[in-house]
Amino acid sequence: MHYNKQRVNQSSKQAWVDNNLFLNMASVNKDLVKERKSATFDKELLTEILYNGKEGVKRRRYLQNIAIQDPYLKSLTPWWNRDRETHYDIALKKAVYLNQLMEKMNITAPIDMFILREAAACQENNPLGLHQVMFIPTIEKQGTKEQIEKFLPPARAMKYIGTYAQTELGHGTFIRGLETTATYDPKTEEFIINSPTLTSMKYWPGSLGKTSNHVILMAQLHSQGKNHGIHAFVVQIRSLEDHRPLPGITVGDIGNKLGYEGMDNGFLMFNNVRVPRDAMLMRYSRVERDGTYVPPKNAKIAYGSMVFIRAMIVGDMGRSLAQASVIAIRYSAVRRQTEIRPGGEEPQVIDYQTQQEKLFPLLAASYAYIFMGYHMAVEYFRVTAEIERGNMEEMQSLHALAAGLKALSSDLASSGVDRLRVSCGGHGYSLASGLPKIFTNITPAMTYEGENTVMYLQCARYLIKMYAQVASGQQLSGFISYLSNKPRPHSGVNEALKLEDLIELYEHAASRLIQGVAMKMQSLMKSGKPEEVARNMCSVQMVQASKMHSAAYVVRTFAMTIQAKVTDPNLAKVMTTLCQVFAVDGILQKTGYFLMDGFLSGKQAQMLAERQMALFAEIRPNAVALVDAFDYPDEVLQSCLGRYDGNVYEALFEYAKNSPLNKADVLPSYHTVLKPLIQGESSAPAARL
Amino acid sequence: MHYNKQRVNQSSKQAWVDNNLFLNMASVNKDLVKERKSATFDKELLTEILYNGKEGVKRRRYLQNIAIQDPYLKSLTPWWNRDRETHYDIALKKAVYLNQLMEKMNITAPIDMFILREAAACQENNPLGLHQVMFIPTIEKQGTKEQIEKFLPPARAMKYIGTYAQTELGHGTFIRGLETTATYDPKTEEFIINSPTLTSMKYWPGSLGKTSNHVILMAQLHSQGKNHGIHAFVVQIRSLEDHRPLPGITVGDIGNKLGYEGMDNGFLMFNNVRVPRDAMLMRYSRVERDGTYVPPKNAKIAYGSMVFIRAMIVGDMGRSLAQASVIAIRYSAVRRQTEIRPGGEEPQVIDYQTQQEKLFPLLAASYAYIFMGYHMAVEYFRVTAEIERGNMEEMQSLHALAAGLKALSSDLASSGVDRLRVSCGGHGYSLASGLPKIFTNITPAMTYEGENTVMYLQCARYLIKMYAQVASGQQLSGFISYLSNKPRPHSGVNEALKLEDLIELYEHAASRLIQGVAMKMQSLMKSGKPEEVARNMCSVQMVQASKMHSAAYVVRTFAMTIQAKVTDPNLAKVMTTLCQVFAVDGILQKTGYFLMDGFLSGKQAQMLAERQMALFAEIRPNAVALVDAFDYPDEVLQSCLGRYDGNVYEALFEYAKNSPLNKADVLPSYHTVLKPLIQGESSAPAARL
Repeated sequence: MHYNKQRVNQSSKQAWVDNNLFLNMASVNKDLVKERKSATFDKELLTEILYNGKEGVKRRRYLQNIAIQDPYLKSLTPWWNRDRETHYDIALKKAVYLNQLMEKMNITAPIDMFILREAAACQENNPLGLHQVMFIPTIEKQGTKEQIEKFLPPARAMKYIGTYAQTELGHGTFIRGLETTATYDPKTEEFIINSPTLTSMKYWPGSLGKTSNHVILMAQLHSQGKNHGIHAFVVQIRSLEDHRPLPGITVGDIGNKLGYEGMDNGFLMFNNVRVPRDAMLMRYSRVERDGTYVPPKNAKIAYGSMVFIRAMIVGDMGRSLAQASVIAIRYSAVRRQTEIRPGGEEPQVIDYQTQQEKLFPLLAASYAYIFMGYHMAVEYFRVTAEIERGNMEEMQSLHALAAGLKALSSDLASSGVDRLRVSCGGHGYSLASGLPKIFTNITPAMTYEGENTVMYLQCARYLIKMYAQVASGQQLSGFISYLSNKPRPHSGVNEALKLEDLIELYEHAASRLIQGVAMKMQSLMKSGKPEEVARNMCSVQMVQASKMHSAAYVVRTFAMTIQAKVTDPNLAKVMTTLCQVFAVDGILQKTGYFLMDGFLSGKQAQMLAERQMALFAEIRPNAVALVDAFDYPDEVLQSCLGRYDGNVYEALFEYAKNSPLNKADVLPSYHTVLKPLIQGESSAPAARL
Repeated sequence: MHYNKQRVNQSSKQAWVDNNLFLNMASVNKDLVKERKSATFDKELLTEILYNGKEGVKRRRYLQNIAIQDPYLKSLTPWWNRDRETHYDIALKKAVYLNQLMEKMNITAPIDMFILREAAACQENNPLGLHQVMFIPTIEKQGTKEQIEKFLPPARAMKYIGTYAQTELGHGTFIRGLETTATYDPKTEEFIINSPTLTSMKYWPGSLGKTSNHVILMAQLHSQGKNHGIHAFVVQIRSLEDHRPLPGITVGDIGNKLGYEGMDNGFLMFNNVRVPRDAMLMRYSRVERDGTYVPPKNAKIAYGSMVFIRAMIVGDMGRSLAQASVIAIRYSAVRRQTEIRPGGEEPQVIDYQTQQEKLFPLLAASYAYIFMGYHMAVEYFRVTAEIERGNMEEMQSLHALAAGLKALSSDLASSGVDRLRVSCGGHGYSLASGLPKIFTNITPAMTYEGENTVMYLQCARYLIKMYAQVASGQQLSGFISYLSNKPRPHSGVNEALKLEDLIELYEHAASRLIQGVAMKMQSLMKSGKPEEVARNMCSVQMVQASKMHSAAYVVRTFAMTIQAKVTDPNLAKVMTTLCQVFAVDGILQKTGYFLMDGFLSGKQAQMLAERQMALFAEIRPNAVALVDAFDYPDEVLQSCLGRYDGNVYEALFEYAKNSPLNKADVLPSYHTVLKPLIQGESSAPAARL
């Protein structure tokens, strides 16, 4: 047990990855053994539902093991002890290494690539990610045949490394406000690119500061004295010989952030940088040699990839919540605190009702948003296939859905992961818990890919439009059809907590909120307010309506998923309880919305609060199995508290020994600062410091 | 405007502290100029109310300037670019330097010391803080005359540097569960100190890992074969000669955390360490030479300092929210985003109703908790003076108040500062915003000095006890007397939003929640449940009751403070609006509690939601003046977004240039990783990496 100073240096590498360090931890904590025996369902069945059946689970574990056992990846400095430079350096090394590994192993399916990356660098940054996800796809989608032939081979070969440079210092979600200019010069058949103001500086794009030698530049296109709006250009920014910034280019990293330490979010300015005419991606719109601008036929054609990324964020948020739930729930089963009977054993903290209230709604939300993410992907591919066939009907509803759910899922995950951190008490604050890493990595999802409030408002504009259709007598189809329903005067929800009754509560509240804000808008505009003023005066309510609508969709999808995918009756029972926990929690968080018009009675609300505690008691014996089912190996979670074997205190001690401050028993600051103080040589303040 | 690469190195020191860097920013942003003109009150009057009158404000500014203009402090590496070792080194240097500076300048008043430290190291750690706040006071309060004479002079002279070692790896808030033992050996008249288990390791105490050579050790006292419970011992852990750990002592830093980078939170284990009998602080209880244990006369005598620290946290949380509000509100006035009328200017984001909803309730909360903090201090000194005179009557209520408000204030500040960060959009995520620093520094307040849920439950036990007194016909006095009030059937709140009506809503809801949980407890126990089981089954409701009770106290204190301290009618109007914003927001967050029993009607709830928007419109022209009144100089806030002059984009660019990744245009990782990739030498994966 006692601390051997020599081990500090010996064990300076990843404590969790090198299992040899934990030879003395072979046994599993007795509480966790008990928890796993108490489960009323077969957790492997649930894992198979989550990861695409028996074969999917097998493949996932195979790929995870490749990453976990890789000697090169094991040899890298662990995440929690890196300074900023090391973070970036290792992120880059991992990215290149994983690309080469996947090439060598012929891993090409997106799901396989995702699994391998997640196992090798969970919640870490990938400085080559935007090259694959934004740079190459934008060329593919928006380039002409000739441009694709020109740009794609070097991009695929990683000779060109690119990113997507859109956001500017003074301009975020509102894209039309971008200031960077690309002015066509017909004399030389070139565009001249400029950053006309300080606020036009590109600022925040990932991989921009240090990694990329090319960018997709979003800029205002000027030709023949006219501004034709935002267009995409392929622009080289660094030399292919020595990586130095090209003349007229100013580029660098934007400095340290709350997280994203491995990512070189960058700034970029242009001073009369000339690029050839074919730098502009011209599949949909183009500039002729003489400067004539030819606009695109359909302005919304480039819409899809943004919607896709937002849809993917929903599942990411679910998985992040799931990882945090694994950690918090296993630790809550292991941790014992505060004897409740004098002299008795201290109970597992998971037995405290207050702890259950912190853990179980977020456990339920993890499943809700993972299922929602799968459903979003299905919907995305279904609707885009329709669009390809020329049917634009559902584009708007998909866009609204993605906007609302991107916002709702990232709001919940960000605050939820942080609440799970705090539920672990003081130890949650240590990087050893693994929770700060998840939080700092996902919280920017609230502002990137469309700031959340703007997203809610976009969703709400769609809802108000749909309400107008209902008001004019149209029958809506699909999920939104609840808006057409004739409302019952009172909710029929009772102790049985039927899922239909819970869904009806959400849909009723959403209906009421949408109707309320639509009518307020109308009356404000009738009273003479300009539309934009009226909309601003309704915006808080619009956000509320969007949230309730999106939440209704998540509850319905959770219920649908159980019906469609869970056949085993034991598992179906547990999953139904979990869905009830999720739905009831949402109602209790915002009871006012349900009570306001008397649809829910005060008695029913109190019944729901009581039933919630009974639901927690039903979840309690299954809580550990429900997080085990997420099937995240210790090496992926990298958490002292979330270990499968529950040996959390041994792991915390190992972690402590590896502190950068423990490189020496007595630090240099002792000699320069403390020693003179302690030994009384300190009369002249700070002269010596 | 254009980026001069040579400046990266020149400007590698604190961008905000060295004003010369910002010569081109002499002018104040025009929007902020307009905002300051639009205020309807004299902000200096409010500053004087916050900081103890004209003289207090003058003194505060004088002390702040000393810190700000100090050349040594200016010369230190800025906060946002330090690695862990540098963080600790600088924190230590600042601590020693400031102590010496205060000695030299004869600054001894606690408020003066606080101001100087806040100005020199706002939201940074002080590795010598626990020495002053815990080590020395514990000796003073719990030592005998002889012990004070022995330990205090070297502690005051900083020959002994100490901390308070209580929390263990497996034991936090529940102090009786601590495992470290101090066993008395009458043969040698010594205590033998041991860490009998892994979980008994001291873990988390600040300043323990690297700084302290002594600790106040909290350990189970064993003598004559009996355990006499937790007692305090003064124990030397490191040599006064060379700072090495003494024999039998294992000590070090616990590793990296989400924040607290400047603090050496430590671990500590004992292996048969012998200390003399007078190491035990024996003012209240003692062990005789022969091992006879003499217990204290009053078991709760050592209560006070814990209550004091909790009371102080309340004000700290208010100030932290205030700092975050300054940043978010100034930036929201400067930032323009999304034209709402096609072709029109993009509005200031502070004009968006959704943004006001993010900012103004937290601005109001800043004032609410700063006032609450002052009131807590007054109450603390009043009640402790009573206790000194032997009147223990109010000790319980003070303890409950401090517990509930410590929890409520830190819950709100932690999530509130984070919401203010997100309200700044993407830039909030950069350390340049100054917001991540505030968040990471204050969020541990939710778990330290008593985990928040435990705090709420302690408060609730008091409330249930008080309810029993009311039920038995006693008339309560003081704030809690609302429990005795005969409730009206319906709230009289109307559009006037009278503060009495708002307070009544809180007190009514608190009353109902307390009564509900007290009766549930009773009925569970009547039905045969053991008390601890019944209490656990009521614990979620107990927390709800505590929160509502504590919130009621804050609203009442806010209203009282306006009445007592604000004489100017213009200012009184603004502060009353702010108090209404605070109170109404709390009701709207939890409308269900107010609607549940029909005390508030659905109509009234909707009226409150509408009125809230009107209150925001009233606050709007005063928002910047209300944060200016907090009077935090730029050099204290260290935020690019919160600058007084609003030149946020210039500051962000300066910040970016100073990124550690910009030390060179082309980083070493280019040569080792990117170059082989770009230049196509990459066939053997990773062999080279």
